[in-house]
Amino acid sequence: MAQAETTDRTYIHGYKASHIQHHASRTAESHAAYLLPHLMNMAESHPQIDLLDVGAGPGTISASLAKYIPEGTVTATDISDEVLERALSHARECGQNNVKTKFADVYSLPFDDSSFDIVHASQVLIHLNEPHRAVKEMLRVCKTGGIIAIRDADLKAWSVHPELPGLRSFQQAIGQVTSCMNAGSKLVAWAMEAGVKREDITYSVGSFCYSTPEERKMWGGAMRERLRDGGMREKLLQDGKWKKEQIEDMERAWDQWIVTEDATFGSLNGEIVIKVK
Amino acid sequence: MAQAETTDRTYIHGYKASHIQHHASRTAESHAAYLLPHLMNMAESHPQIDLLDVGAGPGTISASLAKYIPEGTVTATDISDEVLERALSHARECGQNNVKTKFADVYSLPFDDSSFDIVHASQVLIHLNEPHRAVKEMLRVCKTGGIIAIRDADLKAWSVHPELPGLRSFQQAIGQVTSCMNAGSKLVAWAMEAGVKREDITYSVGSFCYSTPEERKMWGGAMRERLRDGGMREKLLQDGKWKKEQIEDMERAWDQWIVTEDATFGSLNGEIVIKVK
Repeated sequence: MAQAETTDRTYIHGYKASHIQHHASRTAESHAAYLLPHLMNMAESHPQIDLLDVGAGPGTISASLAKYIPEGTVTATDISDEVLERALSHARECGQNNVKTKFADVYSLPFDDSSFDIVHASQVLIHLNEPHRAVKEMLRVCKTGGIIAIRDADLKAWSVHPELPGLRSFQQAIGQVTSCMNAGSKLVAWAMEAGVKREDITYSVGSFCYSTPEERKMWGGAMRERLRDGGMREKLLQDGKWKKEQIEDMERAWDQWIVTEDATFGSLNGEIVIKVK
Repeated sequence: MAQAETTDRTYIHGYKASHIQHHASRTAESHAAYLLPHLMNMAESHPQIDLLDVGAGPGTISASLAKYIPEGTVTATDISDEVLERALSHARECGQNNVKTKFADVYSLPFDDSSFDIVHASQVLIHLNEPHRAVKEMLRVCKTGGIIAIRDADLKAWSVHPELPGLRSFQQAIGQVTSCMNAGSKLVAWAMEAGVKREDITYSVGSFCYSTPEERKMWGGAMRERLRDGGMREKLLQDGKWKKEQIEDMERAWDQWIVTEDATFGSLNGEIVIKVK
């Protein structure tokens, strides 16, 4: 594929196992529940659904969506061959032979116009400098009568106990390594900027949370690893807004959160479903 | 009932129709979905469930819960005879004759020990100075083998677009008229403070959102009315932290939010289910 004239061809956090351990726990049920009724409704009359999963990462949501459309196909894309290989392996391990992968830049998808019945993107727009351009491109490759489903976090809407200063700093810091900290609240605006009419957009919010000892170890551990080793640490130090000592404070805060018996974490995500006309 | 030795015997917002118009849109499905599987599971083996709904306000969730247990009874309590009358009328209008009401202070519930199978409280602890004492009292009136279900907002976890300064001020201001702005994140902590073991608590988060023209008019209108007329306005002016002009700014911000076509609002709520042993 030709190098596109875009600026967002990197994923800051990187694709190390330590970083994507949380991503790998994502399923269609936990992270794309808002899409499932639409998907199942469409599959009833048209089981051979072509679904594009943009920025699929390790592909656990892709494989999970593929279960719902055994006669259809899921095309998982990302901007790393390494993570796409992992996505394909994961699908095969789940017995989902209806998943294929393709290296693709969301701003110039290597697909013809009107190629897909459903286009899905989870936590992708939050990392883009021009999210409305990505929506336009998703609209281009989606068939008339199809749907586009987009979900992104609002990182301003974290619910955390206990309120350790290091965790509030981390919240700011992780916002800094996205393009828009509260992407979840702006999805309707971005879709309208891409030319979609308000009445063709359904907005909803979804949430997830962690609080049991196992969940705290998984989530707190994944967040701490981002600080210890990976693109987020580099970016924070590079930007000069955070000092090494402050990053160490954040790491210690996650360590403390993990062992705090009454600790909780909740995250709010915006979701839109666009009817393509 | 004797006057209890408590300090939380008022509900700042008051019970005017303009204030509770949002409360009246609440149902079991929209605001107590986390409780429904437990309720239905219990009703299968024991249909005559006695459910206590503490701080039920206009009783729309109470009436909605009562639908699920036609052979059971819902007792709705609050600290205003006026709002309890409304709750009873609402239940009757819905054809739910299995709802009764009782004036009751959550710190000294006028019921014997082990009276109820399920004790439910929605957006109650957020207004209390000693939430763990309320949990203790709810535990007292709940039978062994029963469950307690509590849900409260985390007002720090608002997701709002557009980000008008007046709306962020309002978020601070409404936090100020609660006892704990991020109650939702602290429910596990409060239950443990009341003596419950961590392994007997299930934590989840639920969310709701508004974005369509009708929803914006309803939600934005309800928030604006709190500022124009009611206990919140009085409290804000009394506390001296906010000036009349700032409150007017907040009102204008809601007016603007209502007419903004791509506006969204999302709210995160903490939820716990306690198994009473």
